[in-house]
Amino acid sequence: MSRIITIGREFGSGGRTIGKMAGEKLGIPVYDNEILAKIAEESGLAEEYISDKSEDTSLGSLIARGLSSAGSYRQTSAEELLWQAQRKVILELAEKGSCIIVGRCADYILKEKADCLKVFVYASVEKRAERIVSVYGESMESPEKRLRDKDKKRGAFYNYNTDMKWGRPHNYNICLDSGTLGLETCRDIICALYEKSV
Amino acid sequence: MSRIITIGREFGSGGRTIGKMAGEKLGIPVYDNEILAKIAEESGLAEEYISDKSEDTSLGSLIARGLSSAGSYRQTSAEELLWQAQRKVILELAEKGSCIIVGRCADYILKEKADCLKVFVYASVEKRAERIVSVYGESMESPEKRLRDKDKKRGAFYNYNTDMKWGRPHNYNICLDSGTLGLETCRDIICALYEKSV
Repeated sequence: MSRIITIGREFGSGGRTIGKMAGEKLGIPVYDNEILAKIAEESGLAEEYISDKSEDTSLGSLIARGLSSAGSYRQTSAEELLWQAQRKVILELAEKGSCIIVGRCADYILKEKADCLKVFVYASVEKRAERIVSVYGESMESPEKRLRDKDKKRGAFYNYNTDMKWGRPHNYNICLDSGTLGLETCRDIICALYEKSV
Repeated sequence: MSRIITIGREFGSGGRTIGKMAGEKLGIPVYDNEILAKIAEESGLAEEYISDKSEDTSLGSLIARGLSSAGSYRQTSAEELLWQAQRKVILELAEKGSCIIVGRCADYILKEKADCLKVFVYASVEKRAERIVSVYGESMESPEKRLRDKDKKRGAFYNYNTDMKWGRPHNYNICLDSGTLGLETCRDIICALYEKSV
Protein backbone atom coordinates (compact mmCIF):
# COMPACT_ATOMS: atom_id res chain seq x y z
CA MET A 1 0.00 0.00 0.00
CA SER A 2 1.35 3.38 -0.88
CA ARG A 3 1.97 5.86 1.87
CA ILE A 4 1.89 9.62 1.46
CA ILE A 5 3.54 12.35 3.51
CA THR A 6 2.08 15.83 3.21
CA ILE A 7 4.04 18.80 4.49
CA GLY A 8 2.23 22.03 5.22
CA ARG A 9 4.61 24.80 6.18
CA GLU A 10 4.99 28.42 7.01
CA PHE A 11 6.91 30.50 4.51
CA GLY A 12 10.58 30.55 5.51
CA SER A 13 10.33 27.58 7.88
CA GLY A 14 12.37 25.29 5.61
CA GLY A 15 9.46 22.87 5.20
CA ARG A 16 10.19 22.44 1.50
CA THR A 17 13.84 21.63 2.20
CA ILE A 18 12.84 19.16 4.92
CA GLY A 19 10.55 17.49 2.37
CA LYS A 20 13.41 17.16 -0.14
CA MET A 21 15.74 15.79 2.55
CA ALA A 22 13.16 13.24 3.72
CA GLY A 23 12.44 12.16 0.14
CA GLU A 24 16.12 11.59 -0.47
CA LYS A 25 16.54 9.53 2.69
CA LEU A 26 13.40 7.46 2.03
CA GLY A 27 13.96 7.13 -1.71
CA ILE A 28 10.50 8.38 -2.66
CA PRO A 29 9.56 11.28 -4.97
CA VAL A 30 8.86 14.75 -3.60
CA TYR A 31 6.34 16.97 -5.33
CA ASP A 32 6.51 20.66 -4.84
CA ASN A 33 6.92 22.95 -7.87
CA GLU A 34 6.69 19.84 -10.08
CA ILE A 35 2.97 19.97 -9.39
CA LEU A 36 2.66 23.30 -11.19
CA ALA A 37 3.33 21.85 -14.65
CA LYS A 38 0.81 19.09 -14.04
CA ILE A 39 -1.84 21.57 -12.92
CA ALA A 40 -1.11 23.70 -16.00
CA GLU A 41 -1.62 20.71 -18.25
CA GLU A 42 -4.81 19.71 -16.47
CA SER A 43 -6.38 23.16 -16.35
CA GLY A 44 -5.03 24.95 -19.40
CA LEU A 45 -3.98 27.81 -17.15
CA ALA A 46 -0.56 29.43 -17.46
CA GLU A 47 2.11 28.06 -15.14
CA GLU A 48 2.98 31.55 -13.96
CA TYR A 49 -0.62 32.20 -12.93
CA ILE A 50 -0.70 28.87 -11.09
CA SER A 51 2.59 29.51 -9.32
CA ASP A 52 1.15 32.77 -8.11
CA LYS A 53 -2.24 31.42 -7.05
CA SER A 54 -1.95 27.76 -6.11
CA GLU A 55 -1.26 28.44 -2.44
CA ASP A 56 -1.54 32.10 -1.69
CA THR A 57 -4.39 34.41 -2.37
CA SER A 58 -5.42 37.95 -1.60
CA LEU A 59 -8.61 38.88 0.16
CA GLY A 60 -9.70 40.81 -2.96
CA SER A 61 -9.51 37.78 -5.19
CA LEU A 62 -11.37 35.65 -2.63
CA ILE A 63 -14.19 38.19 -2.56
CA ALA A 64 -14.29 38.27 -6.38
CA ARG A 65 -14.40 34.48 -6.40
CA GLY A 66 -17.18 34.43 -3.83
CA LEU A 67 -19.19 36.91 -5.89
CA SER A 68 -18.67 34.99 -9.13
CA SER A 69 -20.15 31.90 -7.54
CA ALA A 70 -23.03 33.69 -5.85
CA GLY A 71 -25.24 33.89 -8.96
CA SER A 72 -27.76 31.23 -9.79
CA TYR A 73 -25.39 29.92 -12.46
CA ARG A 74 -22.20 29.12 -10.62
CA GLN A 75 -19.61 30.64 -12.93
CA THR A 76 -16.29 28.87 -13.12
CA SER A 77 -13.63 31.43 -12.36
CA ALA A 78 -9.97 30.82 -13.16
CA GLU A 79 -9.38 30.27 -9.44
CA GLU A 80 -12.13 27.63 -9.23
CA LEU A 81 -10.62 25.94 -12.26
CA LEU A 82 -7.22 26.00 -10.61
CA TRP A 83 -8.53 24.48 -7.37
CA GLN A 84 -10.31 21.67 -9.22
CA ALA A 85 -7.18 20.88 -11.25
CA GLN A 86 -4.97 21.04 -8.16
CA ARG A 87 -7.27 18.59 -6.38
CA LYS A 88 -7.28 16.19 -9.30
CA VAL A 89 -3.50 16.26 -9.75
CA ILE A 90 -2.84 15.65 -6.04
CA LEU A 91 -5.34 12.78 -5.84
CA GLU A 92 -3.71 11.19 -8.89
CA LEU A 93 -0.20 11.56 -7.48
CA ALA A 94 -1.32 9.90 -4.26
CA GLU A 95 -2.77 7.01 -6.28
CA LYS A 96 0.46 6.48 -8.20
CA GLY A 97 2.59 5.47 -5.21
CA SER A 98 4.36 6.59 -2.07
CA CYS A 99 5.50 10.19 -2.20
CA ILE A 100 5.89 13.47 -0.33
CA ILE A 101 3.71 16.42 -1.32
CA VAL A 102 4.71 19.86 -0.09
CA GLY A 103 2.01 22.47 0.50
CA ARG A 104 -0.96 23.12 -1.78
CA CYS A 105 -3.55 21.92 0.78
CA ALA A 106 -2.56 18.31 0.10
CA ASP A 107 -3.30 17.41 3.73
CA TYR A 108 -6.91 18.47 3.23
CA ILE A 109 -7.29 17.03 -0.26
CA LEU A 110 -6.03 13.65 1.02
CA LYS A 111 -7.88 13.87 4.35
CA GLU A 112 -9.98 10.77 3.80
CA LYS A 113 -6.96 8.78 2.72
CA ALA A 114 -6.11 6.71 5.77
CA ASP A 115 -2.45 6.15 5.05
CA CYS A 116 -1.29 9.72 5.01
CA LEU A 117 1.15 11.27 7.47
CA LYS A 118 0.29 14.95 7.79
CA VAL A 119 3.11 17.21 8.96
CA PHE A 120 3.15 20.94 9.66
CA VAL A 121 6.46 22.82 9.85
CA TYR A 122 6.65 26.22 11.53
CA ALA A 123 9.17 28.51 13.21
CA SER A 124 9.35 31.84 15.00
CA VAL A 125 9.24 35.02 12.93
CA GLU A 126 12.87 35.74 13.87
CA LYS A 127 14.14 32.37 12.67
CA ARG A 128 12.12 32.58 9.46
CA ALA A 129 13.29 36.12 8.75
CA GLU A 130 16.91 34.96 9.05
CA ARG A 131 16.21 32.08 6.72
CA ILE A 132 14.43 33.95 3.94
CA VAL A 133 17.21 36.53 3.78
CA SER A 134 19.84 33.77 3.53
CA VAL A 135 17.86 31.74 0.96
CA TYR A 136 16.08 34.38 -1.14
CA GLY A 137 18.33 37.38 -0.45
CA GLU A 138 17.47 40.88 0.68
CA SER A 139 14.60 42.80 -0.87
CA MET A 140 13.11 46.27 -0.58
CA GLU A 141 10.60 45.00 1.96
CA SER A 142 11.69 43.92 5.42
CA PRO A 143 11.74 40.12 5.85
CA GLU A 144 9.15 40.46 8.63
CA LYS A 145 6.72 42.20 6.28
CA ARG A 146 7.31 39.59 3.57
CA LEU A 147 6.55 36.86 6.11
CA ARG A 148 3.41 38.55 7.37
CA ASP A 149 2.06 39.05 3.82
CA LYS A 150 2.84 35.52 2.78
CA ASP A 151 1.40 33.99 6.00
CA LYS A 152 -1.77 35.99 5.54
CA LYS A 153 -2.26 34.93 1.91
CA ARG A 154 -1.38 31.30 2.52
CA GLY A 155 -3.74 31.15 5.48
CA ALA A 156 -6.54 32.80 3.49
CA PHE A 157 -6.14 30.35 0.61
CA TYR A 158 -6.16 27.35 2.92
CA ASN A 159 -9.08 28.52 5.03
CA TYR A 160 -11.18 29.41 1.99
CA ASN A 161 -10.66 26.11 0.21
CA THR A 162 -10.77 23.76 3.14
CA ASP A 163 -13.15 25.14 5.79
CA MET A 164 -10.38 24.46 8.31
CA LYS A 165 -7.96 26.83 9.97
CA TRP A 166 -4.44 26.80 8.57
CA GLY A 167 -1.74 25.87 11.07
CA ARG A 168 -4.18 24.51 13.67
CA PRO A 169 -2.44 21.43 15.14
CA HIS A 170 -5.58 19.29 14.80
CA ASN A 171 -5.26 19.24 11.01
CA TYR A 172 -1.95 17.40 11.30
CA ASN A 173 -0.48 14.29 12.95
CA ILE A 174 2.60 16.20 14.03
CA CYS A 175 3.81 19.82 14.07
CA LEU A 176 7.51 20.62 14.14
CA ASP A 177 9.32 23.84 15.05
CA SER A 178 12.19 23.73 12.55
CA GLY A 179 13.74 26.81 14.13
CA THR A 180 14.55 25.07 17.41
CA LEU A 181 14.66 21.42 16.33
CA GLY A 182 16.74 22.00 13.18
CA LEU A 183 16.05 20.67 9.67
CA GLU A 184 17.90 17.36 10.15
CA THR A 185 15.96 16.46 13.29
CA CYS A 186 12.68 17.28 11.56
CA ARG A 187 13.68 15.03 8.66
CA ASP A 188 14.66 12.22 11.03
CA ILE A 189 11.35 12.35 12.93
CA ILE A 190 9.36 12.29 9.68
CA CYS A 191 11.40 9.38 8.29
CA ALA A 192 11.07 7.40 11.54
CA LEU A 193 7.30 7.84 11.55
CA TYR A 194 7.07 6.89 7.89
CA GLU A 195 9.23 3.80 8.19
CA LYS A 196 7.39 2.60 11.25
CA SER A 197 4.13 2.35 9.41
CA VAL A 198 4.99 1.34 5.87
CA MET B 1 23.23 20.66 32.82
CA SER B 2 19.73 19.70 33.75
CA ARG B 3 17.19 19.39 31.00
CA ILE B 4 13.46 19.85 31.41
CA ILE B 5 10.56 18.51 29.38
CA THR B 6 7.25 20.34 29.69
CA ILE B 7 4.08 18.71 28.43
CA GLY B 8 1.05 20.86 27.73
CA ARG B 9 -1.95 18.78 26.78
CA GLU B 10 -5.60 18.78 25.96
CA PHE B 11 -7.86 17.08 28.47
CA GLY B 12 -8.29 13.45 27.45
CA SER B 13 -5.33 13.40 25.06
CA GLY B 14 -3.26 11.12 27.29
CA GLY B 15 -0.53 13.75 27.71
CA ARG B 16 -0.15 12.96 31.40
CA THR B 17 0.24 9.24 30.68
CA ILE B 18 2.79 10.00 27.95
CA GLY B 19 4.71 12.08 30.51
CA LYS B 20 4.75 9.18 33.00
CA MET B 21 5.85 6.75 30.29
CA ALA B 22 8.66 9.05 29.12
CA GLY B 23 9.82 9.63 32.69
CA GLU B 24 10.00 5.90 33.29
CA LYS B 25 11.99 5.30 30.12
CA LEU B 26 14.38 8.19 30.78
CA GLY B 27 14.66 7.58 34.52
CA ILE B 28 13.80 11.14 35.49
CA PRO B 29 11.02 12.36 37.81
CA VAL B 30 7.65 13.42 36.47
CA TYR B 31 5.72 16.16 38.25
CA ASP B 32 2.01 16.39 37.76
CA ASN B 33 -0.27 16.19 40.78
CA GLU B 34 2.85 16.07 42.97
CA ILE B 35 3.09 19.80 42.32
CA LEU B 36 -0.17 20.44 44.13
CA ALA B 37 1.21 19.58 47.56
CA LYS B 38 4.21 21.81 46.97
CA ILE B 39 2.02 24.71 45.89
CA ALA B 40 -0.16 24.18 48.96
CA GLU B 41 2.88 24.37 51.21
CA GLU B 42 4.19 27.45 49.44
CA SER B 43 0.93 29.37 49.35
CA GLY B 44 -0.98 28.19 52.41
CA LEU B 45 -3.95 27.45 50.14
CA ALA B 46 -5.91 24.22 50.45
CA GLU B 47 -4.84 21.45 48.11
CA GLU B 48 -8.38 20.96 46.94
CA TYR B 49 -8.69 24.61 45.93
CA ILE B 50 -5.39 24.35 44.08
CA SER B 51 -6.36 21.17 42.30
CA ASP B 52 -9.45 22.95 41.10
CA LYS B 53 -7.77 26.18 40.06
CA SER B 54 -4.16 25.52 39.10
CA GLU B 55 -4.92 24.93 35.45
CA ASP B 56 -8.54 25.60 34.73
CA THR B 57 -10.53 28.66 35.40
CA SER B 58 -13.94 30.05 34.64
CA LEU B 59 -14.54 33.34 32.88
CA GLY B 60 -16.33 34.62 35.99
CA SER B 61 -13.34 34.11 38.24
CA LEU B 62 -11.05 35.75 35.68
CA ILE B 63 -13.28 38.80 35.62
CA ALA B 64 -13.34 38.90 39.42
CA ARG B 65 -9.57 38.59 39.48
CA GLY B 66 -9.20 41.33 36.88
CA LEU B 67 -11.44 43.61 38.96
CA SER B 68 -9.61 42.87 42.18
CA SER B 69 -6.34 43.96 40.59
CA ALA B 70 -7.77 47.04 38.90
CA GLY B 71 -7.76 49.24 42.02
CA SER B 72 -4.84 51.48 42.90
CA TYR B 73 -3.79 48.95 45.53
CA ARG B 74 -3.36 45.70 43.68
CA GLN B 75 -5.15 43.30 45.99
CA THR B 76 -3.74 39.83 46.17
CA SER B 77 -6.57 37.45 45.41
CA ALA B 78 -6.32 33.75 46.18
CA GLU B 79 -5.85 33.14 42.48
CA GLU B 80 -2.95 35.59 42.27
CA LEU B 81 -1.40 33.90 45.26
CA LEU B 82 -1.83 30.53 43.61
CA TRP B 83 -0.20 31.71 40.38
CA GLN B 84 2.79 33.17 42.23
CA ALA B 85 3.25 29.97 44.24
CA GLN B 86 2.86 27.81 41.12
CA ARG B 87 5.51 29.87 39.34
CA LYS B 88 7.91 29.60 42.26
CA VAL B 89 7.45 25.83 42.68
CA ILE B 90 7.99 25.15 38.98
CA LEU B 91 11.10 27.33 38.79
CA GLU B 92 12.53 25.53 41.83
CA LEU B 93 11.77 22.08 40.40
CA ALA B 94 13.54 23.03 37.17
CA GLU B 95 16.57 24.17 39.19
CA LYS B 96 16.76 20.89 41.08
CA GLY B 97 17.53 18.68 38.08
CA SER B 98 16.23 17.05 34.93
CA CYS B 99 12.52 16.30 35.06
CA ILE B 100 9.21 16.27 33.22
CA ILE B 101 6.52 18.74 34.22
CA VAL B 102 2.98 18.12 33.02
CA GLY B 103 0.66 21.07 32.45
CA ARG B 104 0.38 24.09 34.75
CA CYS B 105 1.78 26.55 32.19
CA ALA B 106 5.28 25.19 32.85
CA ASP B 107 6.23 25.84 29.21
CA TYR B 108 5.56 29.54 29.74
CA ILE B 109 7.05 29.74 33.23
CA LEU B 110 10.28 28.15 31.92
CA LYS B 111 10.25 30.04 28.61
CA GLU B 112 13.56 31.79 29.17
CA LYS B 113 15.21 28.56 30.26
CA ALA B 114 17.21 27.52 27.20
CA ASP B 115 17.35 23.81 27.86
CA CYS B 116 13.68 23.05 27.90
CA LEU B 117 11.85 20.80 25.44
CA LYS B 118 8.29 22.05 25.14
CA VAL B 119 5.75 19.49 23.96
CA PHE B 120 2.03 19.85 23.29
CA VAL B 121 -0.20 16.75 23.08
CA TYR B 122 -3.62 16.93 21.42
CA ALA B 123 -6.16 14.66 19.75
CA SER B 124 -9.50 14.85 17.98
CA VAL B 125 -12.64 15.28 20.06
CA GLU B 126 -13.74 11.75 19.08
CA LYS B 127 -10.51 10.14 20.28
CA ARG B 128 -10.49 12.14 23.51
CA ALA B 129 -14.14 11.35 24.22
CA GLU B 130 -13.36 7.64 23.89
CA ARG B 131 -10.40 8.02 26.22
CA ILE B 132 -12.08 9.96 29.01
CA VAL B 133 -14.93 7.47 29.17
CA SER B 134 -12.46 4.57 29.39
CA VAL B 135 -10.20 6.32 31.95
CA TYR B 136 -12.64 8.33 34.06
CA GLY B 137 -15.85 6.41 33.40
CA GLU B 138 -19.26 7.65 32.31
CA SER B 139 -20.86 10.68 33.89
CA MET B 140 -24.15 12.53 33.63
CA GLU B 141 -22.67 14.89 31.10
CA SER B 142 -21.73 13.73 27.61
CA PRO B 143 -17.95 13.30 27.17
CA GLU B 144 -18.04 15.93 24.40
CA LYS B 145 -19.50 18.51 26.77
CA ARG B 146 -16.95 17.64 29.47
CA LEU B 147 -14.17 18.12 26.91
CA ARG B 148 -15.53 21.42 25.66
CA ASP B 149 -15.86 22.79 29.22
CA LYS B 150 -12.40 21.64 30.24
CA ASP B 151 -10.77 22.93 27.03
CA LYS B 152 -12.41 26.29 27.50
CA LYS B 153 -11.28 26.62 31.12
CA ARG B 154 -7.76 25.39 30.50
CA GLY B 155 -7.39 27.74 27.54
CA ALA B 156 -8.73 30.67 29.56
CA PHE B 157 -6.31 30.00 32.42
CA TYR B 158 -3.33 29.74 30.09
CA ASN B 159 -4.22 32.76 27.99
CA TYR B 160 -4.85 34.92 31.06
CA ASN B 161 -1.62 34.04 32.82
CA THR B 162 0.72 33.92 29.87
CA ASP B 163 -0.43 36.46 27.27
CA MET B 164 -0.06 33.64 24.72
CA LYS B 165 -2.66 31.51 23.04
CA TRP B 166 -3.00 27.99 24.44
CA GLY B 167 -2.37 25.23 21.92
CA ARG B 168 -0.79 27.53 19.33
CA PRO B 169 2.09 25.49 17.83
CA HIS B 170 4.55 28.38 18.17
CA ASN B 171 4.59 28.05 21.96
CA TYR B 172 6.08 24.56 21.65
CA ASN B 173 9.00 22.78 19.97
CA ILE B 174 6.77 19.93 18.89
CA CYS B 175 3.04 19.10 18.86
CA LEU B 176 1.85 15.50 18.78
CA ASP B 177 -1.54 14.05 17.88
CA SER B 178 -1.72 11.18 20.35
CA GLY B 179 -4.96 9.96 18.77
CA THR B 180 -3.32 8.99 15.49
CA LEU B 181 0.30 8.49 16.56
CA GLY B 182 -0.48 6.46 19.69
CA LEU B 183 0.93 6.99 23.19
CA GLU B 184 4.04 4.81 22.69
CA THR B 185 5.12 6.66 19.56
CA CYS B 186 4.65 10.00 21.31
CA ARG B 187 6.80 8.75 24.18
CA ASP B 188 9.49 7.51 21.79
CA ILE B 189 9.69 10.82 19.92
CA ILE B 190 9.97 12.77 23.18
CA CYS B 191 12.67 10.43 24.53
CA ALA B 192 14.65 10.56 21.27
CA LEU B 193 14.61 14.36 21.30
CA TYR B 194 15.60 14.46 24.96
CA GLU B 195 18.45 11.98 24.61
CA LYS B 196 19.83 13.70 21.56
CA SER B 197 20.40 16.91 23.41
CA VAL B 198 21.36 15.90 26.93
